[in-house]
Amino acid sequence: VAVERGARLASRDARAEDTSFTVGTVRIGGGGLVVCAGPCAVESEEQILSVARFLRGVGADLLRGGAYKPRTSPYSFRGLGREGLLLLARAREATGLPVVTEAIDEESLELCEQHADVVQIGARNMQNFALLRRAGRGKLPVFLKRGMSATLDELLLSAEHVLNEGNPRVILCERGIRTFSTHSRYTLDLSVVPAAQEATHLPIFVDPSHATGKSRRVASMALAAAAAGAAGVMLEVHPRPGEAMSDGSQAMAPAAFASLVSELRAIASIRTTATETLR
Amino acid sequence: VAVERGARLASRDARAEDTSFTVGTVRIGGGGLVVCAGPCAVESEEQILSVARFLRGVGADLLRGGAYKPRTSPYSFRGLGREGLLLLARAREATGLPVVTEAIDEESLELCEQHADVVQIGARNMQNFALLRRAGRGKLPVFLKRGMSATLDELLLSAEHVLNEGNPRVILCERGIRTFSTHSRYTLDLSVVPAAQEATHLPIFVDPSHATGKSRRVASMALAAAAAGAAGVMLEVHPRPGEAMSDGSQAMAPAAFASLVSELRAIASIRTTATETLR
Amino acid sequence: VAVERGARLASRDARAEDTSFTVGTVRIGGGGLVVCAGPCAVESEEQILSVARFLRGVGADLLRGGAYKPRTSPYSFRGLGREGLLLLARAREATGLPVVTEAIDEESLELCEQHADVVQIGARNMQNFALLRRAGRGKLPVFLKRGMSATLDELLLSAEHVLNEGNPRVILCERGIRTFSTHSRYTLDLSVVPAAQEATHLPIFVDPSHATGKSRRVASMALAAAAAGAAGVMLEVHPRPGEAMSDGSQAMAPAAFASLVSELRAIASIRTTATETLR
Amino acid sequence: VAVERGARLASRDARAEDTSFTVGTVRIGGGGLVVCAGPCAVESEEQILSVARFLRGVGADLLRGGAYKPRTSPYSFRGLGREGLLLLARAREATGLPVVTEAIDEESLELCEQHADVVQIGARNMQNFALLRRAGRGKLPVFLKRGMSATLDELLLSAEHVLNEGNPRVILCERGIRTFSTHSRYTLDLSVVPAAQEATHLPIFVDPSHATGKSRRVASMALAAAAAGAAGVMLEVHPRPGEAMSDGSQAMAPAAFASLVSELRAIASIRTTATETLR
Repeated sequence: VAVERGARLASRDARAEDTSFTVGTVRIGGGGLVVCAGPCAVESEEQILSVARFLRGVGADLLRGGAYKPRTSPYSFRGLGREGLLLLARAREATGLPVVTEAIDEESLELCEQHADVVQIGARNMQNFALLRRAGRGKLPVFLKRGMSATLDELLLSAEHVLNEGNPRVILCERGIRTFSTHSRYTLDLSVVPAAQEATHLPIFVDPSHATGKSRRVASMALAAAAAGAAGVMLEVHPRPGEAMSDGSQAMAPAAFASLVSELRAIASIRTTATETLR
Repeated sequence: VAVERGARLASRDARAEDTSFTVGTVRIGGGGLVVCAGPCAVESEEQILSVARFLRGVGADLLRGGAYKPRTSPYSFRGLGREGLLLLARAREATGLPVVTEAIDEESLELCEQHADVVQIGARNMQNFALLRRAGRGKLPVFLKRGMSATLDELLLSAEHVLNEGNPRVILCERGIRTFSTHSRYTLDLSVVPAAQEATHLPIFVDPSHATGKSRRVASMALAAAAAGAAGVMLEVHPRPGEAMSDGSQAMAPAAFASLVSELRAIASIRTTATETLR
Repeated sequence: VAVERGARLASRDARAEDTSFTVGTVRIGGGGLVVCAGPCAVESEEQILSVARFLRGVGADLLRGGAYKPRTSPYSFRGLGREGLLLLARAREATGLPVVTEAIDEESLELCEQHADVVQIGARNMQNFALLRRAGRGKLPVFLKRGMSATLDELLLSAEHVLNEGNPRVILCERGIRTFSTHSRYTLDLSVVPAAQEATHLPIFVDPSHATGKSRRVASMALAAAAAGAAGVMLEVHPRPGEAMSDGSQAMAPAAFASLVSELRAIASIRTTATETLR
Repeated sequence: VAVERGARLASRDARAEDTSFTVGTVRIGGGGLVVCAGPCAVESEEQILSVARFLRGVGADLLRGGAYKPRTSPYSFRGLGREGLLLLARAREATGLPVVTEAIDEESLELCEQHADVVQIGARNMQNFALLRRAGRGKLPVFLKRGMSATLDELLLSAEHVLNEGNPRVILCERGIRTFSTHSRYTLDLSVVPAAQEATHLPIFVDPSHATGKSRRVASMALAAAAAGAAGVMLEVHPRPGEAMSDGSQAMAPAAFASLVSELRAIASIRTTATETLR
């Protein structure tokens, strides 16, 4: 049955209205701005619990944190694994924040399904089709990051692998692409947000942390993502960025993040009005 | 004597505070959001006067319009030339809006200096060093667009050619870069806005029209630029986009533009607060 | 023990002399030019046997053919799977040509190890670290293709994942990168060949078929790869390109391929002299 | 009359057979491989005369050398100007080698026309349409380098500006494009050679020096260009690379260049046979 019949499942032709669903009490898609935040990697119980409580207090919606890290070098810290998942689950218990975390192979995906609320498939695995299909047979929403050289159409075809296995809940995420430009690690392609909204009913988030690399610029790009109409943002927050085990320079400190959240909400409400006008 | 001594003139090291100056009564740099709008090309007196009056009415700050068009193909419409400059000057008389227009060689630059208020050097001429130096010996502010494969550092070095000849009033402008990505004509690199603000005291604008190519996406990216902290936006507006002699699909119609301006102002005011908090 | 100590295993610092090994009777690395050819996908016994016999006759060294195809769309032909591997093994029996074929997950990798001589990890899986480590615990040489947006350093770090698990036999392969350029599907980055030779002792091949997309251009780029000093080329050959089940336009027809092989050999012998002179 | 009628002048549709012409006694286009070499910049009479005599001795065809250098920074060495042109003319007198040199504006173009044999328009000026049209009204062949983010079609449209003014002698040149790849300064896009040969009758050269940046890699890429079927190569040679006033690391020393020329000739003769076979 590997034949394309009619419109692709991810396309607006197959489904005109926005896909929208809830994770815990958080509604994703369909209008509002979802703020997902947390540390790059789960490092300790103290770290993840203190971040989660802080995030809860300033109004974040979802908790992110890596237990399994896909690492370019075999010699880098790969995360706490199953132990990290258990710590995330404890943070959810303590705060009520649903947990988003990354799976890097079938084994970690199964564990994520037991302990998390949304399973992330990272940019480097965007075309790991075996993993996509496995996630499509699971029950958790899939947070699918755009590969660093993937076109929008390729991202949608990767989503199609998930949808085609029976799981309709996919969240797309722009996280920066590879270009010649050197002032940032990746070039955040914000114009993919309105382009995706024309092409698909799936919600699209933006993660400015890895691309931008410096926390001050991350805030500017998060505001820009909200203004561009993103369904959500994913941000790295660390209680003490200078001590982070990975990617500390791009993590926001708590005070800066608290201000950012209120500005994000203000921009999202202007944007909602804008969208209605534009229609 | 062509030797680099000390800090480059465009750098924050040479000048810590933001460069700010007025064009007519419009202040550029130093905090507010400047809205520069108009048609891609001046086509007729009726067209440019009606656009200018409309723009004045909805609160735009500067009038843009091309009299000299650098065209990839020798067979495309190259603009009305000197006649176009005279029509722009008439639109300024009628509305008070200062005029921004592009020079493509020394001859057109001299004419621009006689009839316009800001002279634009386009992306394709960003490394036309003879033209840059000539603009540096002139008296008008220079609106310098980033080349489609220029790094931020190369853009700043092109500005340096102008500054080094004695003209301190340069406005930088992001207009999209060449990447593999196919959903838009160019990839608008909004993260260059905070990066430029760290590196230079010169104001940086964003022109989302050419990169994004479709008017609905242009509006989203203009809002994103304002949220990212740009000093201004440059937008294509045409009284009847479907009849434009060039680039009609990316031009905004008057009604959509009027809504956009008020949303831009609202986001700029949130962003101003955000910037103060981030400092 | 996930700590980088001293030189990376793939680097020239860790091993100055070229890595060289045999697959069947074919020596890979250390000077000669290896010609690996065959169809994109194994389609039938008749197809693969006739191609293999032809290749044997014109002096190719290795037989390639896909049994498991990583497909961007879930609706595309995914290959014959295990059946395809058995057909490849039969072609090897008939001709003596060692077989190179792609694994896309742990399951297919195990089957490849049983039936093939070299296991390929494709561009889309270059950072599928679980698969790399699994291949590093296996016994077959690994043919590792550069991801379409991977830097040379990232390619070498992916090789490091294999080496670090105990398998020293890795062949690198350039297959084209993502750029703005539109005249070809990918931009073949031939200058990575001398760059890799400086950085690593591992052999580097070039596959011009997917990047170039048209068989006439494929031949030119194969000759260029040989002149650039590549350790081998991988080429698509199909008995009747117009009837191929995938990627027919880039497959070479037998007659053109036969001429190409003799030109490749001639250039490789000039190149060998050149390399000795350059040292 | 700015209307595209029928086939573009640069296209194969407008002219099926290869454009071929002589510069001095050197035939360009139509089959052979032209070797153009010399220093990045003319520095002194002793330097340019000694290089030219050496090049003559080892069989180079054309002498290159910069008198006017377009420099990214206003503080870099800009060349000897008119004095450099006079030194190049003296080197031609002494050796008979025709001279290729770059013009950067109308003034330098007029001087080049008086003193040189081929006028180069560099990558940064590929879309300086005023300069292109001026060169199209001149009598010298135009050596037109591809911009670092120009598509093949844009390069051909820039050539069209020259042809359309009445000058039919244009040489195209690939010199590397901007990509994410970091192992070289630019990515040499050799596959543009067969692509250009399909699209246009104009000859296409390759300049591997700036892209590759290191002299040892330059030699590999020059050989690859010859194998790809380029009509010529442009190479930087300096009598003492370590003392060059600009770009010394990419300049070849005389001994290495002498070996390279004979290998280039050997590959070109194989390639000629290959082309005939491919037809």
